[in-house]
Order: sequence, then C-alpha cells, then structure tokens
Amino acid sequence: MSNRIGTCISFTLFGESHGAEIGMLADGLPAGIPVDEELIKKQLGRRRPCGAISTARVEADEYRIVSGVFNGYTTGAPLCLLIPNSNTNSKDYEGLTYHPRPSHADYTAFVKYGGYSDYRGGGHFSGRLTAALTAMGAIVQSALKAKGIEIGAHISSVGQIKDKSFSPTAEEFALAKEGFPVIDKSAGEKMKAYMAEAAAEGDSVGGIIELAVSGMPAGVGEPWFDGVENALARAMFGIPAVKGIEFGAGFGFGELKGSEANDAFTAKQGRVMTKTNNNGGINGGITNGMPLVYRVAIKPTPSIYKHQETLNLRTGKEEPLQIQGRHDPAIIHRAVPVTEGVSALVLADLLAQQYGRSWLVPDKEERK
Amino acid sequence: MSNRIGTCISFTLFGESHGAEIGMLADGLPAGIPVDEELIKKQLGRRRPCGAISTARVEADEYRIVSGVFNGYTTGAPLCLLIPNSNTNSKDYEGLTYHPRPSHADYTAFVKYGGYSDYRGGGHFSGRLTAALTAMGAIVQSALKAKGIEIGAHISSVGQIKDKSFSPTAEEFALAKEGFPVIDKSAGEKMKAYMAEAAAEGDSVGGIIELAVSGMPAGVGEPWFDGVENALARAMFGIPAVKGIEFGAGFGFGELKGSEANDAFTAKQGRVMTKTNNNGGINGGITNGMPLVYRVAIKPTPSIYKHQETLNLRTGKEEPLQIQGRHDPAIIHRAVPVTEGVSALVLADLLAQQYGRSWLVPDKEERK
Amino acid sequence: MSNRIGTCISFTLFGESHGAEIGMLADGLPAGIPVDEELIKKQLGRRRPCGAISTARVEADEYRIVSGVFNGYTTGAPLCLLIPNSNTNSKDYEGLTYHPRPSHADYTAFVKYGGYSDYRGGGHFSGRLTAALTAMGAIVQSALKAKGIEIGAHISSVGQIKDKSFSPTAEEFALAKEGFPVIDKSAGEKMKAYMAEAAAEGDSVGGIIELAVSGMPAGVGEPWFDGVENALARAMFGIPAVKGIEFGAGFGFGELKGSEANDAFTAKQGRVMTKTNNNGGINGGITNGMPLVYRVAIKPTPSIYKHQETLNLRTGKEEPLQIQGRHDPAIIHRAVPVTEGVSALVLADLLAQQYGRSWLVPDKEERK
Amino acid sequence: MSNRIGTCISFTLFGESHGAEIGMLADGLPAGIPVDEELIKKQLGRRRPCGAISTARVEADEYRIVSGVFNGYTTGAPLCLLIPNSNTNSKDYEGLTYHPRPSHADYTAFVKYGGYSDYRGGGHFSGRLTAALTAMGAIVQSALKAKGIEIGAHISSVGQIKDKSFSPTAEEFALAKEGFPVIDKSAGEKMKAYMAEAAAEGDSVGGIIELAVSGMPAGVGEPWFDGVENALARAMFGIPAVKGIEFGAGFGFGELKGSEANDAFTAKQGRVMTKTNNNGGINGGITNGMPLVYRVAIKPTPSIYKHQETLNLRTGKEEPLQIQGRHDPAIIHRAVPVTEGVSALVLADLLAQQYGRSWLVPDKEERK
Repeated sequence: MSNRIGTCISFTLFGESHGAEIGMLADGLPAGIPVDEELIKKQLGRRRPCGAISTARVEADEYRIVSGVFNGYTTGAPLCLLIPNSNTNSKDYEGLTYHPRPSHADYTAFVKYGGYSDYRGGGHFSGRLTAALTAMGAIVQSALKAKGIEIGAHISSVGQIKDKSFSPTAEEFALAKEGFPVIDKSAGEKMKAYMAEAAAEGDSVGGIIELAVSGMPAGVGEPWFDGVENALARAMFGIPAVKGIEFGAGFGFGELKGSEANDAFTAKQGRVMTKTNNNGGINGGITNGMPLVYRVAIKPTPSIYKHQETLNLRTGKEEPLQIQGRHDPAIIHRAVPVTEGVSALVLADLLAQQYGRSWLVPDKEERK
Repeated sequence: MSNRIGTCISFTLFGESHGAEIGMLADGLPAGIPVDEELIKKQLGRRRPCGAISTARVEADEYRIVSGVFNGYTTGAPLCLLIPNSNTNSKDYEGLTYHPRPSHADYTAFVKYGGYSDYRGGGHFSGRLTAALTAMGAIVQSALKAKGIEIGAHISSVGQIKDKSFSPTAEEFALAKEGFPVIDKSAGEKMKAYMAEAAAEGDSVGGIIELAVSGMPAGVGEPWFDGVENALARAMFGIPAVKGIEFGAGFGFGELKGSEANDAFTAKQGRVMTKTNNNGGINGGITNGMPLVYRVAIKPTPSIYKHQETLNLRTGKEEPLQIQGRHDPAIIHRAVPVTEGVSALVLADLLAQQYGRSWLVPDKEERK
Repeated sequence: MSNRIGTCISFTLFGESHGAEIGMLADGLPAGIPVDEELIKKQLGRRRPCGAISTARVEADEYRIVSGVFNGYTTGAPLCLLIPNSNTNSKDYEGLTYHPRPSHADYTAFVKYGGYSDYRGGGHFSGRLTAALTAMGAIVQSALKAKGIEIGAHISSVGQIKDKSFSPTAEEFALAKEGFPVIDKSAGEKMKAYMAEAAAEGDSVGGIIELAVSGMPAGVGEPWFDGVENALARAMFGIPAVKGIEFGAGFGFGELKGSEANDAFTAKQGRVMTKTNNNGGINGGITNGMPLVYRVAIKPTPSIYKHQETLNLRTGKEEPLQIQGRHDPAIIHRAVPVTEGVSALVLADLLAQQYGRSWLVPDKEERK
Repeated sequence: MSNRIGTCISFTLFGESHGAEIGMLADGLPAGIPVDEELIKKQLGRRRPCGAISTARVEADEYRIVSGVFNGYTTGAPLCLLIPNSNTNSKDYEGLTYHPRPSHADYTAFVKYGGYSDYRGGGHFSGRLTAALTAMGAIVQSALKAKGIEIGAHISSVGQIKDKSFSPTAEEFALAKEGFPVIDKSAGEKMKAYMAEAAAEGDSVGGIIELAVSGMPAGVGEPWFDGVENALARAMFGIPAVKGIEFGAGFGFGELKGSEANDAFTAKQGRVMTKTNNNGGINGGITNGMPLVYRVAIKPTPSIYKHQETLNLRTGKEEPLQIQGRHDPAIIHRAVPVTEGVSALVLADLLAQQYGRSWLVPDKEERK
C-alpha cells in the first residue's frame, strides 16, 4: 500500500507540510527494543537545515511518541511517532495550485486528487515528511547497531566534486557522521562552496549519496521481489528527489565482462568472504556477508529562485513563475541521514522475515 | 511478500529451473480481458535463446493456462500460467551445492535455506523463471495496448557500444521489437560481434537496457512508496542480473543544476506537456502524461567457462571452478522482453489502484 | 498485518488505554470525501459511557484529524485521527501485571510481550481504542450514506431478553439509533433493568448485536478469502468481547434442509430479489443486492467487582483478585456504534476493490 | 488479497471446477519441512465423496507438487500444488448461466464478472477447490504435529442429532478421524440415516462442525485484526457453505454473566491453565495455552433435486428450476478435513509471525 513499507514489520508515513503534524506508524516492532532518544535527536539534527546551503525554515522537530513505548522500551503494540509542524508560512504558497512548479509534484497531485490535495508547501509530497522517516529510522538504527549492524552514508559527489568511496571502515562511518557528511573533509569544503555559489545564483544542485552497511549476516533477503535490492530500491525512491539507485558496481557493470565482474569466494578465519565486492554484498537478492554498498542519485532541488516557465492551469496559457517561499539550494546533505533511516526500516523488516521479529530485540548484555 | 508484486492485482512467481514446471499466478485481474496468445508466443520467442550469443538449452516454452481463462477471456478468478521444464540436464549441476559459482545465488541460497534448496541450474533463482514473467507480462501488455499504452525496450549499450536513445516514437518501438532489440541496427551488429567475441573467450558481457512507455495518463502512481518509480524499481530488481535502475536523467542529475534539470510546463493542443523530459514522465512518483523513460543496468552473466576461484564449502578451502552446463555469454538481449513484461505487470496494478481494476478491460470497440 | 484491515483502503489502529493518545490511520481513502464532523460526534456520543450501566471513566473524546483533510474534505493522503486519553487513573492497575484478570488479555499479553507491554487499563487491548474505530468509521459511514448505503445495529438480546429483528426498514434504523439501541423500546427498558441488576451484584452481562446494511449493490466482495463474510468476520473479531459471528440464518442453518434454506430468486420492478433472505444478502461471499444481515456475540465484560480466582505469576500460586478501577457492567450498548463503524470500514474497502477508490466520492449532487 | 490468506506465510487458491487443474500456491514456507504424502492422501480420502450421502462425481485427486519441494523436503521457494480435474461433466451445467441456482454464487458471480466467469459446476466458487485446501493443509498439519500441535474436527450436529463435545483428548481426535467424523459413533449412524433420508427426498441438510487444537503454545496471535479468532474466521468463511463461526462459549455468552463466563487462572505442574475454557483458548485474540475450541455453521448444500423457484435472467421472468448434475445431499462430513486443513494454514502463519518462519521446521529428532 502506497505510504507503507514492510511485510513483517510495516511503517506507514503520513502528514502534510503545513498540516498540524506529520508522523510515522510502525506495526510489528517487537517488544523490548530500547528507544534511543539521543540517536533520534542526533539524526534529526543532521537532517535540520543550517547555514547558507539550506532553507530558512528551521523546525524544532520536537517529536512525540504517543503509543507503543512504555518505560523506555517498545511494547509490541503499534508505535506512533508525531512531529508537529510549527514554522509554517502558508501565505508563500497561495496561488501555486494553478501554477505548478516545474519538476515538483504540484501538477501531478492536482491531476490525481482533483484539486482536493493540500498544496501548501508541497503538502503530502513535501520533503518535510522525511523528518518522520529519520526519527523512526533512528529507533531502528539503534536496535540494529546493538546487533552489530551499522549503516552509514556520505555524499559521493556533487557536480564534478567527488568524495572518496566507502571501504567501509568504522573510521569512515565516524567521519561521515561528523559535520558535513563526507569522508574527505577537503572535498566537503569544495562541495559547500559549490552549493553556496548555486544558492547565490538562485539555483540548486544535485548529487549522489553512497551508503554502506556493515555487519549484515549472510542469508537475509527474500527471492525475486523482496530481496535486499528490491526492498531498498522501493523504499529509497520514496525519498523526494531520488531518481536512481545502483548496487555495487551498478551501472558500471555495463562495461565489464564476467571475468572482471565476478566476485571470487574465499575464506578468512573460517568466514566465507569475496575477494572483490562488485555485487555490493548481495547475490540473488540475498546478503552474502560482505558489506552492502549502494548509491542513490539525487536530483537538484526543483524549487529555485530563478525565473521559470510554467503554465497557468486555469487559463491553459504559459505564465512565468518566480518561486517565493523558503527553499534549499541543496538537499543532498540533509538527505544523508534520511537514506540511513530508510535503509534501517527496510533491513529490519528483512531481518524479521528471516529470523523472526524478536531477533531485533537486544539481549540484556547487548544493551547499553 | 517475497515472490509477489502488486496490491490490487498481484502476481506471484514460482518454480525451479529443473523442477517439473515454472509458472506465475495472477490474482485480481478483472474479467473480460482477451488473452492474446499471439503476443505471448511472440514475447516468449524474443526471450528464447538463439544462435552464438545464447545458451544451447532451448526450451519450447509451451505454456498452459490452467485457470482464470474461459472462452478466450479472463474470468476474474486467479489466472495460473504454467510452463513445463522439458530440456533439463541436471547432471551438469552435480557438485555445485558445495562449490558455489561466483556472483551467483548458489552460496546465499545455501546459507538461507540450509541446504534444502533445489540447487540444480540455479533452482528458484534461475533466469529460467523469467519465461513465466514474460508470458504473464504479454497478457497484460496486450490489455494495456488496447487502452493506448505501449511499452518498449531496447539495448542502450553493451560495453562501449551504444544504441541511440528512445524519443520514443512508434517507429522506434517497432524497430526495437523486430529482430535484435536495438533501434540502430548497425549498432546492433557491433554488439552481436562483441558478444560473440566474449563467448569465444569463455567470457560474458553486461549492458544497459532502456525502456519507454507511451500513452500513460497523468495521475497514476501512489505517493511515497507505491509511486511508479518505487514499484518499477522493486519489480525490476527481481529480474536476475539487474543491479541498477534510473529514471529520466537518473544518475546524470548529479551533475546538473536545477535550472538545467527542471522540466518546464507548456501546453500543446490543450494538453499539458513538459518541454524537456528529464524526470522521465514522473513527478513525485506520479505520471505527468509524458512518456516514461528508465534504464536498468544488467551485470555480465556470472556463468562463464573461464576458470574461476571459489571455495569448497565442505572443506572450507579454495578450490578452482570450471563451470560446465549450458550458459549465455550475454543475456541482455533476452532480458529485453522480460523488462517489458515486468513493466506491464507493475503499471497494470498502479492503473487499477487509480481507476479500479475494470479500467483494464477494453471496451468492445477497443478490442480487435 | 496485525492492527490493520483493508486492501485498497487500509485502516491501522494504534494506542494504549493509558498512553498519550489513541488513533487510527487510513491509507487509500480517495480525495474529495466531505468529513462529517456531526456524525463523528454523534457516534462517539453513542459509544460514550453513561449512567448506571457504564463505567465511571468518562472521556471527552476530543478527536483531532492531523493529516489527510484540508478545507473539510479528504485530500487523498493518509488520514490520521487522534483522540487524547485524558481521564486516566493508572494507579488502579498497579500490580495487575503479575496478577492477570480472568478472561482479559493480561496474561496472554504478558506471555507474548515478555513483560514489556503497557498493562495499564488493558493497554493496547483496551476497549478504549474502539473510540478511534468509531470516529474513523463515522467518516466512512457518512460517505457510504451519500451513496445510498446505510448501516444499522441494535441489541438483539441480553440474557433472555430479546429485541425484535431487523427487517430492516429506515424506521427501524432510526429507532435503533435514537437513545438505547433497540427497536422495541420496552424490551430496551427490560434490558437496562437487567444490566443495572448485574451492576448492583458486581457482575456483568453478555448479549448479541444484530446488524443490517441496506443499499449495498450486488457484486461486491471478492471470492474465497476476501468476501463480505470473511472481511466482516475478520474485522468484527477485533472488537474486544466479540466471540462469534453469523450471517443470515447462521447457526440456525444447522437445523434446516436445503428446501427450507434456499432463497428463491424473483424480480420486483425489474430488480432481482430473493423471496427470503436466509443468506443475509450474501452468496459465495458476494453481495446479491438484498440487505446484509449478521449478528455478533458479545461476551460479558470480564472486569467484574466480584471476587475472582487467579494466579500470582511471580509466585505461581493461586491468589484471589478483587478488581478495582472503573468498569462497565455491560458494554453491549456501547459496542453497537463500534460494530457499525467497523462494518463501514470493511465495506468501503470492498466497494473500492470492486469499483475503484473514487467510487466512494460523492458526486456534487449527492452531497448535502 | 481475495484468494489469499497469510502474512508471513501466504497461501493462494486458484482453479475452476471444470477447468484443467485446481491448485494452491504457498509462499513463505520455510525450507526443510518434510512433505508427508501419506497424510495428504489420507485427508484427500476423507474429503472424497462416498456412498449414498455424497455426489456421484468421484475424483481421483491425484495431486502434483510442481515446485518448492526437492528430495521430499520443502526448499523455501514457493510450493505449487496442482490437482487435475478429471471427472467433469460440463453438459450438466449448460443453461445455468442465465438460470441461477438459489443460494449458489451463480447470480452474484454473473453480476460481478459480467458474464465472463466460468459457470460450469460453480466455476471458481465450487467446493471442488477445497481439495487443494485440504492437500496443502495436510502438508502444514504434518509440520504442526511434529511440533506437538494437533488439529481435529468432528460433526457436532446435523439437524437435531448431536455428537458429544470435544474435551479434547487424543482418543477423541483419533475417533473423529476414523470413518464417519464423529466421536459418538452411534450418533454418527443416526446422522447418516438422516442424510440418506434427505437424499431420498431430493433434499439436503446442514449442520455444525466443532474443531479443537491441542498443543498451541501461549502467546500466538496478533492484536486486534490478526488474532487467532480474526484469522481463523476470515479463512473459515472461505469454505463454501460456512455461515457462522464461534469460539468457546460463542453465542452462548449472550446468556451468561461475567461471574459465570470468566475462566479462572490456576497452575498445574508449573503450567498456567484455566479452570474452565469458555474462551476457547483465546484471550484478546491470543492463545492462552488451553486447547482452541471453535465451531462453524454449515448451511444445507444449495444444490437439491427438488423443484425450485428462480429467474431467467434474460427474460427477467420467474422460471422453475430442476437441477441436474451430481450433487451432495450433505457436505458436512466432507467439509470436516477441509476445516482442519484451513485451520492448519492459518495457525502456521500466526506461529511464523510470532516465532519466525523457521520455527515450523522440525528438529532432526522431531521427524519420524
């Protein structure tokens, strides 16, 4: 169903940018997972706009968990997490219903919902909702970490500027999670300068995010349509602005031969490994014990201050548009924790499918 | 659920490469869709191996529909389509259980299923099952065509050799569907030569398939996790060897600015259009009335005759592997009709979600 | 999934009796349904405890819709409805974790959730959550009514006291919805006296609710496992205390012969009808155009003031229990609007499966 | 989805009475369950018509498993089971399309599917499909039995003739499964005489089936809409002719007071038990460790030889009907193994939801 992912543990997203509250509802989370409030706050903080390269709309992101948690642990009942929308400025969006912003969902939502959708700030299609994805993701990320599974993401490239690739090591994960989400901080400075330049021009930039997951046991992922690739891809395309996803060598496979692309099996200290990881830790949709590695393409934020061409849907005539409102010249750095959170939701469900839901509950000694 | 796609109309895949029969079960197809046997046969023919660039295992692909069709029309009851496995040679696969082929699902299936999986010919993970996807896809493709929706695919590139891109026009669709699936037939000849060369070396090649869909009405696709991109991505990664998917400009967005990337709205003959189609016909996960355009990356067939390194899982020691059996040096040309068929299954479900299942039933005058 | 019903339109219930808020999340409701605040309030009022035959815990039931509604109409995005828990008195439930109330979910929740569940007031298993079912049900009931479909329920019997049966007529529906939910108000007086008597004894009573639905078009309901009977039964057993359901003659069929039980077809004013309605408007799981008629059995409220036998789970020894807290000597009259609401949710989904989601949107002239 | 039950393990039914084959597809069954061919045959044998009280259409029920089983064990891939329709006599059904049999699905299927449904022998609505339910159920019953869970059913009553109730003991289960499915064989003789009498009159009889499940661990079943009652009810109403279901005291609760109805907790040899079992082993939708006890109402077979009133749908006029074809004067004894099988499918999914799919795989020492 549309706003939901997950089979054994499902997560449903709801809310509109300028409505009262946005939120996410988890159904099927096992009882006994400690809720890591610090990580929720940290991840929301990483997603929050800041400085010259973000929108001026800053939200406190004061989430509330109204069900499914008791004395700091999940109860096994549905967990509903809410985030109020406080800093809304709906005036900015008046008139946009009939004057769709290019490459936004304004026009398609108008067609689909016959004029009933909440058009303010992108309504249900707003990137604002990713705050709820991030907060719910953090709850699950913490549970995965207690089982030895860590998810990290960094900006792989913006324009022509490239970060180094994930190995991935714990050090790289730590670097990517401190400050601007890159491993090579000097590349990060160049990216920020490039973003600020675009902002100054009233323009926006796209880029590529690379993710890695360490510690995934082999054998997770269901065949054909619920493999790790299927489930991550389905969920990732939910994040606004994602327009591509690739695993391991991805589109680069197109230029390889089998003898170059195949990952030879070997054993290290009794553990089965592969000598290369062109398959990004996944064979036949199922984890093979190597780190997962995948990348998503982020299109430039469609909201730009530059003058644009569009239609007036009432007159049917072209009418130029100068977008008002508060926008991000780049959202890629803010999308980084979102992609981590969404990955956590997907992997938790696949782990539950393979081992049962209660596998996600840390043993007493695994908790901190 | 694992082997199933679709919400209002679901499709479940089953079977093993060397089992009695493979098949697909559709649940939720409306009554009254004429079953186009010619198209099923044509699409199975396009998928069938042929000549120097394919495996020597040639199957008759004699499908049977054992339920859900009466007097040539769907009945509204579940449609079960079966294809017998006739030309199996299980001897070739003896010993492979403990000797996993690199980049295949042998090892991950072994871990996941604890040695109970049918390892012969890749078992349930075999590309053989795409025959059932193709046949079921053809039933739905025919229904979509009666509603003015056409799906086409071609090989976009193999190695460094590129076909021209889809506009897409009806002529391009026709070219791509005749013979070797390219628009520029001279590029096709180069591709075949490149494939034959790899075959001669005991190697295999990867490539990229481009798809386009014309005639999709605006407003189809559900928000966040059941949009056109989510649903197509989830399904496409089911096709063995797919390792990436991108829509419109896809990964190319990473180097664009918003002012370059945004698709300006305009109107032609009273119809809303965009001047460019960088978004591949999709905004916010929902069709905008422009053609859908997307590409999938196909990794080189992992089964190669060349000598490879792998493990013996019983001894835990490295042991080289010389794959026997019958293999494809390239499967990309055979994957083309599969990607069309899978696209049809996905789009039919999204159309049914938007307009109701019976929208898919052609009016009397739409039938031929 | 556990807390969810519905395929094309899904409804997920969440919350705990003594948590911050309870609520329900609808996904798949079409855009353009007017939200009938009056009916929500009316139905919540009918469910609210009152007088000698109800608990002393009275809630204001001040619901909030935080998403999915804009300017009084559904937007097509998920609709999240919340009801705060204001009048909670958790002290009353201290110690109940290890001292399970007979015939409650205390013990089973303890086993299932390993002591992590919120035990206060029954937690997630509390009848309190039916307020959210009722409110969401009212939104859908109003939409159904605009399409000519009306759902009514009354107390069919309590102890030996019987109300008359539904025909059903509009008059009977109106009677059942005014005041105490019976058609024969003198039977209602006897029921109330019987309930008050049980209350005085510190005891509780069970009973049977009969429902009817008029105006359902023929052809609704999916074969085998998503027929009208399957879907209503699954949902109805969600209402706490429901222990049986029967359609038409139901268990009475056991004593009938085919020649007595079969409903002969006839035609009235060009409409196909049946002369009797022993099948309760359903053949093969599909509506036949006659009114739906079904009954649910409601067990006596398990919370009674009378002294009861139970265990102390820590000592493993029997230990008597005198329940404190505020309880209902009878919940059957309060359950009546809940059964109506749940029926509405189920039928809306089946109608959407048959005709598409947008069928539920009233035409301009159907609105009032 | 319509023809499917189950969340973690799903089962989809397909086929038509006079089509080529009927079958069932399981998705999510874990690898390593031994397939008990003897039990499949035994259960199909119990379902097969025999003697004076059954239809003259006798099928060999030669099932084939075409996928998901290798060397006698499930592989973890989807299991497709097929049963050919051999003894079909479609001539008998000519003309029935426009002349609907009372209380059958003929008319509703006609309305729903607009004349495209396969009307021969009831098509997709035929009791014939329960053979597939029974065979798939047997595979799962055998797995449950290896885990100590046994499911039994018997005819509780036919007309006024009653069998004794389940305690349930192993002896009662054994008696119910030998020959005519009753515990008290003398009551069985009376039932058979009553059925034969109805047959002689060209009439049919209804009745009530009682089921019991021993060995279910406490804590199984999900809250609100996927509890044991919800899931069993939904599935049981799929069996043609089922018109009611009740758990424990069921409709009898309507005349009880809380002090009579509540099941007091106690402990025997360190195990939590209840002194009575009015709740049929279920509190709050979750198993409490006591035997499950439930009953389903079976309406008289609608196909009777007696003259009946119905319509001619083409003329819109009443036209009497004398049903030809081969019919059962009673199906209740044949429905007994079907209800067992369906119960097994439902419980297996709920056990998998609680403990993970692999819980269903017997340990080596549990196999026989």
